[in-house]
Amino acid sequence: MFVPYMRASASRVERFNAAHRLHNPNWSDEKNASFFGLCNNENYHGHNYRLIVKVTGEVDPESGYLLDLKLLKDIIRSEVTQRFDHKNLNLDVPDFKGLNPTAENIAYVAWHRIRKQLDNKLVLHITLYETERNFIEYDGQ
Amino acid sequence: MFVPYMRASASRVERFNAAHRLHNPNWSDEKNASFFGLCNNENYHGHNYRLIVKVTGEVDPESGYLLDLKLLKDIIRSEVTQRFDHKNLNLDVPDFKGLNPTAENIAYVAWHRIRKQLDNKLVLHITLYETERNFIEYDGQ
Amino acid sequence: MFVPYMRASASRVERFNAAHRLHNPNWSDEKNASFFGLCNNENYHGHNYRLIVKVTGEVDPESGYLLDLKLLKDIIRSEVTQRFDHKNLNLDVPDFKGLNPTAENIAYVAWHRIRKQLDNKLVLHITLYETERNFIEYDGQ
Amino acid sequence: MFVPYMRASASRVERFNAAHRLHNPNWSDEKNASFFGLCNNENYHGHNYRLIVKVTGEVDPESGYLLDLKLLKDIIRSEVTQRFDHKNLNLDVPDFKGLNPTAENIAYVAWHRIRKQLDNKLVLHITLYETERNFIEYDGQ
Amino acid sequence: MFVPYMRASASRVERFNAAHRLHNPNWSDEKNASFFGLCNNENYHGHNYRLIVKVTGEVDPESGYLLDLKLLKDIIRSEVTQRFDHKNLNLDVPDFKGLNPTAENIAYVAWHRIRKQLDNKLVLHITLYETERNFIEYDGQ
Amino acid sequence: MFVPYMRASASRVERFNAAHRLHNPNWSDEKNASFFGLCNNENYHGHNYRLIVKVTGEVDPESGYLLDLKLLKDIIRSEVTQRFDHKNLNLDVPDFKGLNPTAENIAYVAWHRIRKQLDNKLVLHITLYETERNFIEYDGQ
Repeated sequence: MFVPYMRASASRVERFNAAHRLHNPNWSDEKNASFFGLCNNENYHGHNYRLIVKVTGEVDPESGYLLDLKLLKDIIRSEVTQRFDHKNLNLDVPDFKGLNPTAENIAYVAWHRIRKQLDNKLVLHITLYETERNFIEYDGQ
Repeated sequence: MFVPYMRASASRVERFNAAHRLHNPNWSDEKNASFFGLCNNENYHGHNYRLIVKVTGEVDPESGYLLDLKLLKDIIRSEVTQRFDHKNLNLDVPDFKGLNPTAENIAYVAWHRIRKQLDNKLVLHITLYETERNFIEYDGQ
Repeated sequence: MFVPYMRASASRVERFNAAHRLHNPNWSDEKNASFFGLCNNENYHGHNYRLIVKVTGEVDPESGYLLDLKLLKDIIRSEVTQRFDHKNLNLDVPDFKGLNPTAENIAYVAWHRIRKQLDNKLVLHITLYETERNFIEYDGQ
Repeated sequence: MFVPYMRASASRVERFNAAHRLHNPNWSDEKNASFFGLCNNENYHGHNYRLIVKVTGEVDPESGYLLDLKLLKDIIRSEVTQRFDHKNLNLDVPDFKGLNPTAENIAYVAWHRIRKQLDNKLVLHITLYETERNFIEYDGQ
Repeated sequence: MFVPYMRASASRVERFNAAHRLHNPNWSDEKNASFFGLCNNENYHGHNYRLIVKVTGEVDPESGYLLDLKLLKDIIRSEVTQRFDHKNLNLDVPDFKGLNPTAENIAYVAWHRIRKQLDNKLVLHITLYETERNFIEYDGQ
Repeated sequence: MFVPYMRASASRVERFNAAHRLHNPNWSDEKNASFFGLCNNENYHGHNYRLIVKVTGEVDPESGYLLDLKLLKDIIRSEVTQRFDHKNLNLDVPDFKGLNPTAENIAYVAWHRIRKQLDNKLVLHITLYETERNFIEYDGQ
């Protein structure tokens, strides 16, 4: 069996549906309302989030896999999806106690949770779609 | 100018992002939790809803339009999107006082709101995507 | 070979990219500008049109095909796509001499062109997307 | 709780990935090759199939559900997805012993399998995408 | 409030529909027709363009935003969309006087227009889809 | 004609539908079944693969093209699509004699085939979607 040396990226797409509210408790209500607009609604609103997790590294020549995407799916589900799906991010998810659940900060939390479960040799990059028209990318910098 | 007689449908796609909770106050907490599962979360969760509004009728031979889709867009926005977007459907939208905000019931409310603003000669059908994999259709029956 | 009797629909998606201008020569310039808005631009604008052609009829039990979708693709291309693609609908396509190229009227022309090439036993329905958010359906009524 | 009487449709999207070959054993090899073209490849080819299952009926006023889409998902998975996914339809799936696995016939099998598990009051319609550009609809006629 | 230091990217998707013609006035008509093919049609054709604007920089720990995507949306609309939408790029848009409106050059113009409105600390990358199958990326190099 | 100096990327999307089986002949049947799971099915399964080919380089100021995407389309079709489409990758495609047709290895083969046909000044990156949720990126490293 011919075994090429190659470095590649493998990505997996997962989804979760959650409520959230953007709010900085150190700001006045007026500043929160003015800055965050509709996203500051005290009764929350919500989104179908789409998360794309990209892992980069060497492909194993024996299996032809960079990593088993079923394994990556399981990591994403246990670390992110099952914690965030059908939840209120502000009230139900301890990661956002004291952290404003903007898409940027959700990406930060998701990246660090997944990072801990991955082999150190793998590079991790995530993309988080809050809507079809707004999305965030984060790679740990 | 040649003017064909034709009957057609014209559709417009709009979106809104909202929080909701599925709950029947006449049921016990146990029955609600068992029946609605994660959707019964008392702190709410949320979705990016996609609404497709289809209007059927005769095309005006002078303009070549069934109806002006900018007009249909304005009706959808004033009747549905601006009322539901970035809202908690249970708490912020009077239409759901006493009405469980399932996708079926959201479609019911949206259809009746849009229906009132349309010419009686036009037939109305709506499709409401709650997620990319779950959607409801309703035509007033 | 087990041969079920069944009636079904088979659809094929094709695309074309064209320029057009909406204008009724029997109206004043003011009325055209007011009614058609940006679509009345005298220098034209354009779209990537997406056409979904649906044919309904009995499935041939020998082949298991309602009709060969390669054949349907060839009909759509020769009757519609090759005539409209990379064209100015108002200036280059004789079908729109004297016919305002609204999405409704483009659907009318496409339906009648395809209809002539199909077996009479088949029912024809088309959907024409002018943008991802605006589309027309027509079935010959 | 206000309980509207309404009749609606609820749809669920599922996917499966399978190999198949189109072939009629009663035809000569030449006729098979000429009629089915590349799809007649004796070594098989494959697709990511997308199945949209639409159920129509009355909405239960107590729950606000037409039916629980988790239940519909389970029916689709046990009756269709788990039987067809990552399979060779010609060799691995008994439903296609003696039945050419065209998209039309796959839709026929899927519809009848799902139909048996549904309440008689519900109307069933399915759409099967073989590719993003070719799809079949079937409702039991 | 816990305030992570992070560097991320935030993207916004916008659309515009325009007519254009590819043509180099320094070339003969024959060379233009041969090189640009159908895109050289003297009467123009058109597209639904999709523009993805990605901005990279430090996230503000107070707000949790890299930048307000409503602000980015407003910049894209005033600098690009409102100038190009429902226009003939060759005739109506001064940016293309003397500049062939290929997707590459449209991306160049859009990038430089948006660049002027952004804080110098932010990195800008754009993707321009001319069709669903053809797209350009540009980052100012 | 104003001629900007610019470096950009141009991408083209193509598709092919194929059967495959993941298997390492140096492993026991048990290890193959355990490691590759459903993908090890000895009768094959299949996918609609989507390939995005991105080329990066300088834009020619005369034409305003990085390269003619029709030319890139022809290279992709002759080097990849026509060889893989409606084929069994394990049995019909010599590139996979002795090479396990994982998405990683398919990307490797596609990249090297396209690379040979491109000008040395152009940088090549490809993305291969095996399903809508799993995809690989490769750039020759």
